[in-house]
Amino acid sequence: MDIKQQYIQEIVENRDSGASELARRCLEIVTDIIWKIQTNGVAEMKSEIIDFAHALQAARPSMSPIKNLLQTWLDNLQTLPTFTLQEFRLEAMKTAEDLIESSKRAVDEAATTLSQLIKPNSRIMTYSYSSTVFSLIKICRNSGIQLFIPESRPLCEGARLAETTAKLGVDTTVITESQIGLIVPKVDLVVVGADTVFKNGDVVNKAGTSLIAMAAHAANKPFYVAFEKFKQANAEEHSVELESMAESELGLKEQANLRVFNYYFDITPAHYITAWITEDGVRLNR
Amino acid sequence: MDIKQQYIQEIVENRDSGASELARRCLEIVTDIIWKIQTNGVAEMKSEIIDFAHALQAARPSMSPIKNLLQTWLDNLQTLPTFTLQEFRLEAMKTAEDLIESSKRAVDEAATTLSQLIKPNSRIMTYSYSSTVFSLIKICRNSGIQLFIPESRPLCEGARLAETTAKLGVDTTVITESQIGLIVPKVDLVVVGADTVFKNGDVVNKAGTSLIAMAAHAANKPFYVAFEKFKQANAEEHSVELESMAESELGLKEQANLRVFNYYFDITPAHYITAWITEDGVRLNR
Repeated sequence: MDIKQQYIQEIVENRDSGASELARRCLEIVTDIIWKIQTNGVAEMKSEIIDFAHALQAARPSMSPIKNLLQTWLDNLQTLPTFTLQEFRLEAMKTAEDLIESSKRAVDEAATTLSQLIKPNSRIMTYSYSSTVFSLIKICRNSGIQLFIPESRPLCEGARLAETTAKLGVDTTVITESQIGLIVPKVDLVVVGADTVFKNGDVVNKAGTSLIAMAAHAANKPFYVAFEKFKQANAEEHSVELESMAESELGLKEQANLRVFNYYFDITPAHYITAWITEDGVRLNR
Repeated sequence: MDIKQQYIQEIVENRDSGASELARRCLEIVTDIIWKIQTNGVAEMKSEIIDFAHALQAARPSMSPIKNLLQTWLDNLQTLPTFTLQEFRLEAMKTAEDLIESSKRAVDEAATTLSQLIKPNSRIMTYSYSSTVFSLIKICRNSGIQLFIPESRPLCEGARLAETTAKLGVDTTVITESQIGLIVPKVDLVVVGADTVFKNGDVVNKAGTSLIAMAAHAANKPFYVAFEKFKQANAEEHSVELESMAESELGLKEQANLRVFNYYFDITPAHYITAWITEDGVRLNR
């Protein structure tokens, strides 16, 4: 397997990082590849890097920021004046670094805005792993918040997040997904990240998010979605491929007549969402 | 640990049986104990067996049939004329056997009635393990039904049920609880059992049932609850203790600031339920 295939496999198999983190990792990867491509001219280099970036974009179809961040980088490359190969590599790297910085800043700004909606001692449910929500937790860690985190089967990244927030000194409770209906009525608010946000406000996130949103709606609890704007799909996109992962992750033995579904994402309709929070501020529902 | 404590522990720790099965098992247990109690008279025997039956009733507070079936048996014992000790043992055993038979018949009758609501080739979601639903599946196994069964964390009795139904030749798909919101809109109906049913129609069942009911309601899919009438709580009961099991079942290491909730049951409000099916027939919602 060559280095490009190794990188694509890394992105396909990553279950621990949020979509923003993974998008920034893709920019690090294309930057590294630019230094490894053996070629004679800028035109050939551009053509090869465009093909590779497209392959990375296709690796995680449910995660818009990978597509958007790489596309912005590719678009910027097109606008660069003609360089020597060495100059092109340096400029492409600089462009990627700027985008990574701007993405990190956006996540922190969204988290800071979100933190202004959270009263001290709030009981908060979150789900799966979101870098924006993790940034929020670090901001609020000394304000007496209590976290309630479903484990997030099959790979339990919720349980891993809980171990981390407990280490940060935050009072943290892990529940099974099956207890969501019991616990949502007992929290003050729910906040999740997003993998993709459609123009109509529908949110693609870890499968199970829609159940929490439904339960929050039924219990009249605020349900916030926080994300950097790179998560937004284009106006003409109303669906993404909902990725399905290995059946073996559920741990069952193969058997006749027995199948396993392992869809990783679901879509939460906008009408269950109280507000969308980005680096631009808070957008309330209606 | 004496035999009585062993039996109580068996009932407390059982996670594989539905509430009806467990209630019938309790009758087998009291029958066995009656032959093991060393006593001189019927009065002393009655007093001892009443105490033990009460301890069994308290072992699984979320499961009404254990309370109801044992109580019916105890009430019947009170009406028996005075016997010799040997006659009392035989009559008490006979009474228990009759109740076990009548409970099994009720489960089968509820399943038969329910089967008349299921069209051939239906896509059916069920949840956790219900003996009534399992009886239904055996009735419908050759009519082309497809089953979709959440794994039912933490001990995954849903996955065990799925392995059994697949062995019976029924097309079976296991999902995580987190995929409930994705899959419910794709099935034709949901059917679950119950641990307790209140007079107002609210249903106590494995935690997560309320989420499926909410998702079914949102997707306009029928949500049926099937149970023998011994599951019904008394008119004056509007709540049960929702049992919480060992934190260790979720498999996390102990850590400062980190707790685990492991509530086994939730309450599904009557307004999400399409119909209640018992040995008496179908009661539609409104």
